Amino acid sequence: MNLLESLLEVVGPKGLVGADDAEPLLTDWRGRYHGAARAIVRPADTAQLAGVMKLCAAHGISVVPQGGNTGLVGGATPSEAGDAILLSLARMVRVREVDTRNDTITVEAGCTLQQIQTLAASVDRLFPLSLASEGSCQIGGNISTNAGGTAVLRYGNMRALVLGLEVVLPDGRIWDGLRGLRKDNTGYDMKQLFIGAEGTLGVVTAAVLKLFPALRSRATAWVALASADAAIDLLARCRAACGDALTSFELMSRSQLDIVYQQVADTRDPLDGTSPWALLIELADSSHDAPLQAMLEDVIGAALEDGTALDAALPANETQAAALWHIRHIVSEANVRFGTSVTHDISLPISQIPGCLAQTERRLSEAGLIEGAQCLYVGHVGDGNIHSIVIFPHHVWARVEDRDARAAKIGTIVNDTAVQFGGSISAEHGIGQAHRGELEHYKSDVELDIMRAVKHALDPDRRMNPGKLL
Amino acid sequence: MNLLESLLEVVGPKGLVGADDAEPLLTDWRGRYHGAARAIVRPADTAQLAGVMKLCAAHGISVVPQGGNTGLVGGATPSEAGDAILLSLARMVRVREVDTRNDTITVEAGCTLQQIQTLAASVDRLFPLSLASEGSCQIGGNISTNAGGTAVLRYGNMRALVLGLEVVLPDGRIWDGLRGLRKDNTGYDMKQLFIGAEGTLGVVTAAVLKLFPALRSRATAWVALASADAAIDLLARCRAACGDALTSFELMSRSQLDIVYQQVADTRDPLDGTSPWALLIELADSSHDAPLQAMLEDVIGAALEDGTALDAALPANETQAAALWHIRHIVSEANVRFGTSVTHDISLPISQIPGCLAQTERRLSEAGLIEGAQCLYVGHVGDGNIHSIVIFPHHVWARVEDRDARAAKIGTIVNDTAVQFGGSISAEHGIGQAHRGELEHYKSDVELDIMRAVKHALDPDRRMNPGKLL
Repeated sequence: MNLLESLLEVVGPKGLVGADDAEPLLTDWRGRYHGAARAIVRPADTAQLAGVMKLCAAHGISVVPQGGNTGLVGGATPSEAGDAILLSLARMVRVREVDTRNDTITVEAGCTLQQIQTLAASVDRLFPLSLASEGSCQIGGNISTNAGGTAVLRYGNMRALVLGLEVVLPDGRIWDGLRGLRKDNTGYDMKQLFIGAEGTLGVVTAAVLKLFPALRSRATAWVALASADAAIDLLARCRAACGDALTSFELMSRSQLDIVYQQVADTRDPLDGTSPWALLIELADSSHDAPLQAMLEDVIGAALEDGTALDAALPANETQAAALWHIRHIVSEANVRFGTSVTHDISLPISQIPGCLAQTERRLSEAGLIEGAQCLYVGHVGDGNIHSIVIFPHHVWARVEDRDARAAKIGTIVNDTAVQFGGSISAEHGIGQAHRGELEHYKSDVELDIMRAVKHALDPDRRMNPGKLL
Repeated sequence: MNLLESLLEVVGPKGLVGADDAEPLLTDWRGRYHGAARAIVRPADTAQLAGVMKLCAAHGISVVPQGGNTGLVGGATPSEAGDAILLSLARMVRVREVDTRNDTITVEAGCTLQQIQTLAASVDRLFPLSLASEGSCQIGGNISTNAGGTAVLRYGNMRALVLGLEVVLPDGRIWDGLRGLRKDNTGYDMKQLFIGAEGTLGVVTAAVLKLFPALRSRATAWVALASADAAIDLLARCRAACGDALTSFELMSRSQLDIVYQQVADTRDPLDGTSPWALLIELADSSHDAPLQAMLEDVIGAALEDGTALDAALPANETQAAALWHIRHIVSEANVRFGTSVTHDISLPISQIPGCLAQTERRLSEAGLIEGAQCLYVGHVGDGNIHSIVIFPHHVWARVEDRDARAAKIGTIVNDTAVQFGGSISAEHGIGQAHRGELEHYKSDVELDIMRAVKHALDPDRRMNPGKLL
């Protein structure tokens, strides 16, 4: 039997994707990476998937796991060599258990994030992970990339939401680590290795996830600020005054806001539109009648009084609040219309954000890299995560000579400065194939050695998602 | 130069512990494990510690790291062979950084937990880890054992409180992973390996820890219940009604309470003392005026009305609240006075607690192992962590033939049943030398293989804390 026949025997005809349907799976959704595969396999369950992995091990074939294919760093796109199997989790969508008394659900890796959010809501619970691609990204991919999003400030990254995992190892053995335990100190916590490993150590096939009380009251505010420094001050005061109710704390620069208002017809500034920075703050609570509005008015009132805040708008109803969130959510779309963005996904100690952004912009300017461009900032300040964007109007970008080199030089300054301020070059998007070189450049030899030792321990033949991460 | 001379050169005379002071460091604090060491070394800083580790690597000598020596499983006691170096972190007590705008502190491993709690309070923050030995346990030990305690329900285990680590590897190289970042997706999260590894992969020398808003309002309640099942019901209702304010949720059986009241003069039941179970619930919030008392009265009022709760006492002031907590905290002392305890530290999916406890007691009784003894339960129900105790009055225990075998048989039934119900045999105490055999018995071969592969990758010569964990 040749490989395809053997695969067919394991997964059946439904488990093999034909050439007609292959294209979207071989290209990342932004169209930046394109690859080829020896076969595209879509097993129905863990046993089939393990069978595929055993076959690949026996034949020495590499495996590229793929979830919803919504990543930004090419982590789920195979190389152009076409010598690997693309392993799609899309058919593994069973909900294995809902345990409301343990506040957990056990789901297979192919469930979309939105399915899981909906499932949680149906039993009066919250699954808090939330990100732009939630309608199509899969939970296995969220786990393998340690996804972030807009609720990390309160609930943590994906890593904090996983209690147990089922993983198929490179040799095809199944590790059943599907424990629904909040405390378990019996040796190394092996699930931590697979979370955020981008499929380079094994394939996550199922997970036990934590559920939280549903949120029943909310309060939102838009605050105008003179500086990023003022945002950090206000963050500290909100944390002290509002505690765990503080759910979102999103910062946007005036440069970013102006592009939104210019490009998106139904948006307008809730204040006079002159402040250099604006914050979108949200509090939420599981009780119906938490005094969130009063809490928020108090803390913002004090900030207005002592000059930390310049102005503020507290929406009177949900429609007004939704209009504020619309401004935040439409940022990427507005930027695409306006021009070409060179984007970065840095994180910093929160205290270092103002200094790092100022220094970055100074260096970019001194290097003559941003003539005719603008620096935009939008980010989850509460997590220290800033999307630092250099945007060129289309007509300016069209005249730039050697655009790839320009983007690379900008990236080097942004990342160098972030690292000098104690930051990370990839806060939530991961490494994939996009940032491998940078990983080698910025990580210490000691840390790279530990990572390589772990990779070698679990995947000695380097068959798992080759060309990604390490 | 012989080894001692070489060590002296690295750490100086203050860095070597003489024979006169060795005894307490070679015995665990409960006196159950005793060992010997080739030398006891107490380096002043990371550079010295790395020098010691290099020397040990060159000479092929094993290393047993030790923090406050408060563990319960012999994890910090060297073997009797006396061929290892005992490496005490006690002199590494520097606070390297306090960053209130990032809500982080960077401390060396030898700082006691209480020092860190006090430091956090001095900058109007909370470091939430709290456990009985907090006055003497060290943060490096808390990290290496992934410590639990009484605030896990709200803040998570030690693992959730660590942002960055500095680790000296078995070969003496220093890994500087002291990042103060809440988001960082640049490759495998290597700090996760060292957290909870019980010193078998390297030595944690410093850490970046998360701080939280200080807690300014509290509400406490004592609730009488007919069953453990009712406790789980009430937990779900408290989580829904009180959200993140729910900080502690501690369950005690009547058998446990009666021993406390009998043995400890200044304790008495806050209710009529007849209910089979009682809960101690605490809410806390960072604002001064959170309506916690009203929240708690509402949820308990509803539980009294529909019969989930039998009776309840809400203390009128802090003195009364402290008296309730005194009952909970004095449990171990009361048990020591009453008799000999065979204790277990299991965790379960919360939904499985009532069934597992009932089945365990039935099996123990059918096996004739608990005649003249009582089964006590006290635990952090909100975390699924129950300390399941079989206690024998002193005069009964004195008559038991082959006590070690009896204790072992009891342990087997308790642990077997916990594992059958999806639980863990060590929720927060770890494995050390006490539970190595059980680890091998209960873990799957696949999981043991992954653990061994990681151990081999980081410590190929098996010189780090030999005889512990794996």
